[in-house]
Amino acid sequence: MRVPLTPLDFLERARRLFGPLDAVVDRELRLTYTEFADRAHRLAHAVVARGCRPGDRVAWLGGNTHELLEAYYGVVLAGCVLTPLNVRLAAPELQFILDDCEPALLVVHPAFAGVAESLAPARRLDIGPDYEEALAAAPSTSFDPGDVDEDAVCELFYTSGTTGQPKGAMLTHRALATHAVDSALTNGLTHRDVVLHTIPLFHVNGWGTPHYVTALGARHVMIERFDAADVLRLVETERVTRLFLVPTMATALLEHPAVVTTDASSLSQVSIGGAPSSPELLARLERALGCDVICGYGLTEASPTLTRSIPTRGADDRTVEERRAVRATTGQPIIGVDLRVLGDDGVEVPWDGEAVGEICARSNHVMAGYWRQPDESAAALAGGWLHTGDLATVDHDGFVTIVDRRKDVIVSGGENISSVQVEHALCTHPAVLEAAVVGVVDDRWGQVPRAFVALRAGASATEAELIDWVRERLAHFKAPKRVDVLPELPKSGTGKIEKARLREDHP
Amino acid sequence: MRVPLTPLDFLERARRLFGPLDAVVDRELRLTYTEFADRAHRLAHAVVARGCRPGDRVAWLGGNTHELLEAYYGVVLAGCVLTPLNVRLAAPELQFILDDCEPALLVVHPAFAGVAESLAPARRLDIGPDYEEALAAAPSTSFDPGDVDEDAVCELFYTSGTTGQPKGAMLTHRALATHAVDSALTNGLTHRDVVLHTIPLFHVNGWGTPHYVTALGARHVMIERFDAADVLRLVETERVTRLFLVPTMATALLEHPAVVTTDASSLSQVSIGGAPSSPELLARLERALGCDVICGYGLTEASPTLTRSIPTRGADDRTVEERRAVRATTGQPIIGVDLRVLGDDGVEVPWDGEAVGEICARSNHVMAGYWRQPDESAAALAGGWLHTGDLATVDHDGFVTIVDRRKDVIVSGGENISSVQVEHALCTHPAVLEAAVVGVVDDRWGQVPRAFVALRAGASATEAELIDWVRERLAHFKAPKRVDVLPELPKSGTGKIEKARLREDHP
Repeated sequence: MRVPLTPLDFLERARRLFGPLDAVVDRELRLTYTEFADRAHRLAHAVVARGCRPGDRVAWLGGNTHELLEAYYGVVLAGCVLTPLNVRLAAPELQFILDDCEPALLVVHPAFAGVAESLAPARRLDIGPDYEEALAAAPSTSFDPGDVDEDAVCELFYTSGTTGQPKGAMLTHRALATHAVDSALTNGLTHRDVVLHTIPLFHVNGWGTPHYVTALGARHVMIERFDAADVLRLVETERVTRLFLVPTMATALLEHPAVVTTDASSLSQVSIGGAPSSPELLARLERALGCDVICGYGLTEASPTLTRSIPTRGADDRTVEERRAVRATTGQPIIGVDLRVLGDDGVEVPWDGEAVGEICARSNHVMAGYWRQPDESAAALAGGWLHTGDLATVDHDGFVTIVDRRKDVIVSGGENISSVQVEHALCTHPAVLEAAVVGVVDDRWGQVPRAFVALRAGASATEAELIDWVRERLAHFKAPKRVDVLPELPKSGTGKIEKARLREDHP
Repeated sequence: MRVPLTPLDFLERARRLFGPLDAVVDRELRLTYTEFADRAHRLAHAVVARGCRPGDRVAWLGGNTHELLEAYYGVVLAGCVLTPLNVRLAAPELQFILDDCEPALLVVHPAFAGVAESLAPARRLDIGPDYEEALAAAPSTSFDPGDVDEDAVCELFYTSGTTGQPKGAMLTHRALATHAVDSALTNGLTHRDVVLHTIPLFHVNGWGTPHYVTALGARHVMIERFDAADVLRLVETERVTRLFLVPTMATALLEHPAVVTTDASSLSQVSIGGAPSSPELLARLERALGCDVICGYGLTEASPTLTRSIPTRGADDRTVEERRAVRATTGQPIIGVDLRVLGDDGVEVPWDGEAVGEICARSNHVMAGYWRQPDESAAALAGGWLHTGDLATVDHDGFVTIVDRRKDVIVSGGENISSVQVEHALCTHPAVLEAAVVGVVDDRWGQVPRAFVALRAGASATEAELIDWVRERLAHFKAPKRVDVLPELPKSGTGKIEKARLREDHP
C-alpha cells in the first residue's frame, strides 16, 4: 500500500494518541496536543480564507514562538509552502527573498513590525490580536488537506547565501518525513523527551525537531530567541532533556554565572551543530551540565541533519578522553543518508584521518533543488549527490571531521591550512573566548592566515603571545601572521561567526 | 532528491559504519558486520550463478540460523524475492506454496532435508557444505543490485490462510524500509541493543528485526528454534536486551527451573505478540525477568507491526497495576500507521473501551497485495484500508484491545491454524459429513483446535481415527486435540454452521 510520506501525519498521530498531554510550553502558555492541533487546523482555514491557494508560499517573520511551530503544520495543511524568514536580515535582504518567492501572505510577529513596514506591500497577517481573531473566526472543524503529493514542496528555506544571494532550498513532504524519523531514530529520541527550541525555527527546518518531537508526542519548549539566562532557567523548570546549540550558544551558557546553580540533571544530551567544536569545549560543557555532549552537522539543503557524533560500541574500551574526541568529530551519517567524502577525482578519500575531500550526500532528505534556480540546482545535485562544499577527513571508524568550508581553506605556499584547526588552537589559550581565522592575500605565500579573537572578561593576551601559542601547537606555516583582538566577533542569525564581515570590516 | 527506500541500505550502512563490530552470534559462530555483509553479497552472486533472475522467488526452508538472516539481504541484493517457508508445515502444504510461488531456487537446511525430498523437484541449494562451497566460489566483490524500484516486491510471506489455502503477502522495499525505521523509533531501539531472534524469521518478516537491528548496527543473536533453556542461557551470556515472545514462549520461560538462576539484568524490554496476553502473565514475567513487558500486534500483511502497548506520559501518575494494565492491551499504532477500529457502518467506534469494531490500517507498511490473487487483494485492501478481520475495542487513551481473533483462526503456540483448513481435512474422511473446528483455551498452547463432526448416515469413525486422519495430512499441531461426534451440526438461517453456538453448547 502506498500512502504519501508527509509530516502532516505526525500532527494527526499526536492529536489522536496524545491529545490531552502537554505539547508546547511558550512562556505562560501551555498547549496540549489537542489544542496545538486545533490551532494548526484553524490556521489552515485562516490562510485559505486570506486567499492562499495550494502551492502558494506563506512567508513568516518571527522568532521561536508557538505560532511558528503551529505554522509548520497549519500552513502545510492548507497545501501552502511555509517560508520562514531569518529575522536578523536587513530589510533589503528580506525584500530580495520576498521578491524571489512571491508569497501570497506574510505573517509578522510584532517584534518585527518595524522592518515589515519597510517591505514592499504584501498581504499581511500580524501575530497578536489580528492573528488570534483570524484563528477564532476559523471553523472548528478539521481542515482536510486532501490528497498530499509526497514530492510536492512543503517548506522553503533560504540559505544564508555565503556564495552570493540567498537561495531557496525546496524541501518536499517526503524529504521532511523521512528526515524526521531517520534523524530521531539515529539520535535516540523518545516520547519522554523535552526539547528546548534554542535553534531558530526559521533556520534549517529547526533541525527537524518540529516534526519528530510531534511524531513522538514529546514536549516542545519555546524560547523566542536565545538568551543564556532564559535557557538555563527553562532547562531547570521544564526538565529539558535535549539541547541543540551552536558553539557560540554553548560558550554563552558556560560564561553565564547561573550555570553553576542551575539544576540541569534532566539533560540527557546536548548536541552542537553549525560549526566544528573542540574537545575542550565539550569537556567544559559536560562538566557544567553533567551530560554527554555530541556534535552534529547538516545544512539547509539536507533538511538538515547529515551526521551525529555518537560513539559506537567500538569505542567502549577507550578512555574518557578518547571517547570525547569521538564526540568532538563531525560524526557518522544518520540513518537514511549515504555520505561520502570525495576527492577532486570523485573517488572516496581513504579513511586515514588525513586525506581531505568534499562531503557529498545521497538521501531522500536532500532538497528537490533551489527555488527557480535550475542551474544552481543542477550544480549542487550533480551526479545524484548533494555537493556540500564542506571539506573533511574521515577516520578509521568512518567518523567525519570537517576541516573547512571549501571557500575558507587557506592555501599558503602550496600547503592547505584549515582555518578551523587554527581557530581550535587559539581557543585552547586560557584568555581566548572565541576566534576566527581567514586567509589574506600575501605576495610571498599567496595567502597567509590572519586571526581575530575576542578575549574572556578580564583576561588579556598579546598578539605575539597568541602567535607563539599556535606555533607551539601546529606547523609554523599555520600560525597566523597577524592577530586582532576585538571586543566581540560578528555573528549570524544562527550564531555562526561571520567571516565575510570580518574580511570586509578589516581589509 | 528521490532515493529508493529499501532495506538494502541498512546492510550497506552497517558494513560501512560498523564493519569490525559484532553483528551476528549463532552458536559458536560470531560474525562482524564486514563478514555478515560479505556473506550476503556472496550469496547474491551464488543465487544468480544458479540461474535466478530479478523478480524470481527464492524459497527458504530453515529455522533461525545466520544463513536465513543473510538471505534477508543476499537474496534481495540479487533482485530476487525472499520467500521463507514455515518449517512446521506438512509436505502437501509446502507443495501448495511452492506451486503457487514457483521459486527458481529452494534453499534447504539439513534439518528439513527429509520433507524437502518429498517435494516436487526444484533447483535446490542445501545449507552445509554445498552452501558454503557456493559462497566460497562466489566473487569477493560487492554485488551491485543496480537501480532498486522501491515498489517492487522484496519479500513474500505466506499467511496461514484463514479462508483456506495460504496466500502470499507481497512486501515491497518501501514497505519494509519504512516499517523498520518507524517500528524501531516507536519502540526505542538503539545501536546498543542485543536482540535474540526467538520469533521465527520465516514468520511475519521476523517482526522487522532483521532490518532495524542491522540499520542500527546493533547485535543479532540467533536461536534455531525456541527452547526455554537455550533462551535463558543466551540472555545471560550474550547480555540480551530485547526479547520478542508469543505467550506460549513466555509461559515456557516461566516454567523453566533456570528462570530463577538466570542473570537477566541486561533485559530492558520483553515484547509479547501473536495473541492477547493477560496482566497476570505480564506481572509474572516482569517479576521473573526484572524488566517491563509490553504487548504488540501485527500481521504478515503489515510487515507486520501495527501496535505496541507502551504507556504514555498520561499514565505516569497511575498505579503500578494500572500501568501494567496499559501494557497488557494490544497498544497504540506505531509511527507511520493510521489505525482505526471501524464499526460495521465503516465509522470509527467510540473510544469507550466497550464498542467493538474491526481493526483497519492505512500505512506504507501494508503489503502491495496477495501474490496472484487480485480478488482477495482487493477485498483485503478495500477502500485503501487493510481490513485485518481482528475485532477490538479502543479505550479513552486510544489503546486498542483485541477482543476476538480474526474469525475462524486458532492461535496455538504462536502458530496460526486455519479452522477451515482442518475442517477440509476432516471432510475428506469417507465417514464425515460435515465438520466445524474452533479454538479452545489451553494452558500450554494458548489455544488448541477442537472439532465437531456429523457423520454420514450409516457410517462410523472413532475420535482417534479422525485425529490420525488429520495428522497424516496436515502439520501435527493443526490436528484437533478432541473430536465430538454429533448427530448434526447447528446451522444458521443461511445454512452456515454456527460455531458460536457450538462453543456455547459444548464448553
